Amino acid sequence: MDTHTPPRTEGPAVDLDLRHHGDAEVRDDGSTLVDLAVNVRADTPPAWLREHVAASLGSLAAYPDGRAARAAVAARHGLPVERVLLTAGAAEAFVLLARALKVSRPVVVHPQFTEPEAALRDAGHTVGRVLLREADGFRLDAAAVPEAADLVVIGNPTNPTSVLHPAATIAELARPGRTLVVDEAFMDAVPGEREALAGRTDVPGLVVLRSLTKTWGLAGLRIGYVLAAPETIAELERAQPLWPVSTPALAAAEACVAPRARAEAAHAAHRIAADRAHLVAGLAEFAAHGLRVAGPAAGPFVLVRLPHATAVRHRLRGLGYAVRRGDTFPGLGAEWLRLAVRDRATTDGFLRALGRAAAEPA
Amino acid sequence: MDTHTPPRTEGPAVDLDLRHHGDAEVRDDGSTLVDLAVNVRADTPPAWLREHVAASLGSLAAYPDGRAARAAVAARHGLPVERVLLTAGAAEAFVLLARALKVSRPVVVHPQFTEPEAALRDAGHTVGRVLLREADGFRLDAAAVPEAADLVVIGNPTNPTSVLHPAATIAELARPGRTLVVDEAFMDAVPGEREALAGRTDVPGLVVLRSLTKTWGLAGLRIGYVLAAPETIAELERAQPLWPVSTPALAAAEACVAPRARAEAAHAAHRIAADRAHLVAGLAEFAAHGLRVAGPAAGPFVLVRLPHATAVRHRLRGLGYAVRRGDTFPGLGAEWLRLAVRDRATTDGFLRALGRAAAEPA
Repeated sequence: MDTHTPPRTEGPAVDLDLRHHGDAEVRDDGSTLVDLAVNVRADTPPAWLREHVAASLGSLAAYPDGRAARAAVAARHGLPVERVLLTAGAAEAFVLLARALKVSRPVVVHPQFTEPEAALRDAGHTVGRVLLREADGFRLDAAAVPEAADLVVIGNPTNPTSVLHPAATIAELARPGRTLVVDEAFMDAVPGEREALAGRTDVPGLVVLRSLTKTWGLAGLRIGYVLAAPETIAELERAQPLWPVSTPALAAAEACVAPRARAEAAHAAHRIAADRAHLVAGLAEFAAHGLRVAGPAAGPFVLVRLPHATAVRHRLRGLGYAVRRGDTFPGLGAEWLRLAVRDRATTDGFLRALGRAAAEPA
Repeated sequence: MDTHTPPRTEGPAVDLDLRHHGDAEVRDDGSTLVDLAVNVRADTPPAWLREHVAASLGSLAAYPDGRAARAAVAARHGLPVERVLLTAGAAEAFVLLARALKVSRPVVVHPQFTEPEAALRDAGHTVGRVLLREADGFRLDAAAVPEAADLVVIGNPTNPTSVLHPAATIAELARPGRTLVVDEAFMDAVPGEREALAGRTDVPGLVVLRSLTKTWGLAGLRIGYVLAAPETIAELERAQPLWPVSTPALAAAEACVAPRARAEAAHAAHRIAADRAHLVAGLAEFAAHGLRVAGPAAGPFVLVRLPHATAVRHRLRGLGYAVRRGDTFPGLGAEWLRLAVRDRATTDGFLRALGRAAAEPA
């Protein structure tokens, strides 16, 4: 491509608030904002799932027994249970990876979810950064990752860029002696989960993270899982507290990987794609205001660049809409915003508010 | 005392399964055993609490927000919120302490719950042991703890001995530069919580752990908390994953420290004391078989020593009763068993079974 510029590699981290997350943008305001800031299903879990979780409350007196849920997750990916570890959300997985694995040169591919780097730094690591560039469509260039990196973390599809990297390009990052962590927290929102690496056993050092939080509206329950080689799973498991996942979360995990739930998730992925297309088409109307959508977007959110984004974000709050600031993501800046994909009615209301917010003078 | 022998101090750990817990003794058998192995309330949480937790399932789509629960716990102990950290059970607290604190000479006072030592060892520490002795009634001798220890862990009342140490004797263990961890997971089962250190701010380096699991039948929910100086809390918090405690667990925590729940817990503590007295009186009938109860017991369980304990334990399983083996606790051995305090009817049934089990020839 003529716009190609090599991705930048950074050593020491610049001083961003890596611990800022979208939930802070909707909860610290007494008013009720329409939430386009948090990347999770906006409604509560479906009734059948809520009832299933509620039924588990009858057995809270016993310590959690994760064996059935682990077996169900393993079966869903066609893997033996030794390749599966259930965690208290992907957030716990990042802490386990940072603390349990013997690595000395971790690299995180940015812009992406900031928690993996924050967890690595908290564990005492010096974290290298590969910064993918807007000019390249935030696409992964495998050659940009330093050869010496013994841990590489990448998201697919990536939060916040919404870019879906080809599985083959990510697999090229595998090396003997390197752990390759692919955060697939949003992969189940991609129709057919194309480009998924979950379930693959032919990529050396591969660690795939999955979340059940986003599609199922279970952010409050803390449940996710890790897929990796048995030795790696055993190492991570040794660093976990006893009984790391609660009984209600285990009940939810088992239910969410059952065939009925997977069919519902597949249906939701197509609906999200249609809703995203509607949002992106609406955003195209703002090209005259200098708004650009990163992409092609493949996740349940889109990243946009626009002039005076901070002012627009504040005006949107005044109009009742919370969107995610982009400036806490390494490689982005104050001109970026992330927007969650919502149903058409919500999106239409948002687009009208954006029209008012963008029309005001800066 | 004429039987006094100085407690032994050990360096390297002997090879016990520190990760064996009572829950494994009731779940790996297809049959339904009456559970005297696990130290938690045997019935489900009370209906009002179950309903309160169920109500929280409506807000699972949002990430957990622990602020209200933290404030409620702080208020319950008369402390500022900066002295409180909510954790995914006491088990998470042990991992945080082992990984986040800068200590080089940790010492655990045994026999006690094995998880603190296991977490310290997993974090790479060499753990010293102080072994309290049967001949001393498993009472704490503060002088037995090495001066150089910069982290001391003790339980009060202690699991599995059920001994309640005087708060003043434990406080004597405090030193400048030493962290003093007191696991008060069972303190709310002691009438009046006499000898509690929770809420004290005058003991340097004091860290108190509390559980909501035992009294409230919430082992499956993973909720507990740490009380310590603000700097220590901040250090532990930095080592926690994001959103460490689930929304249902936060709802439970808030409810369990409310005045109504505290009154119910106080009532339960007196009932446990009466039920324990009934169990201990029944066990006295087995003195002729060589059975001895450690004590005076102050927790919701009692520790007994008897000949052929392993054979008796197996026979009890055959008769439908699960009890906790004692031989995985440092400082005890194959002749020890731990028995949970249950209601009178359950205890009477157990005592009859024990009569049959103890009567058979070894």
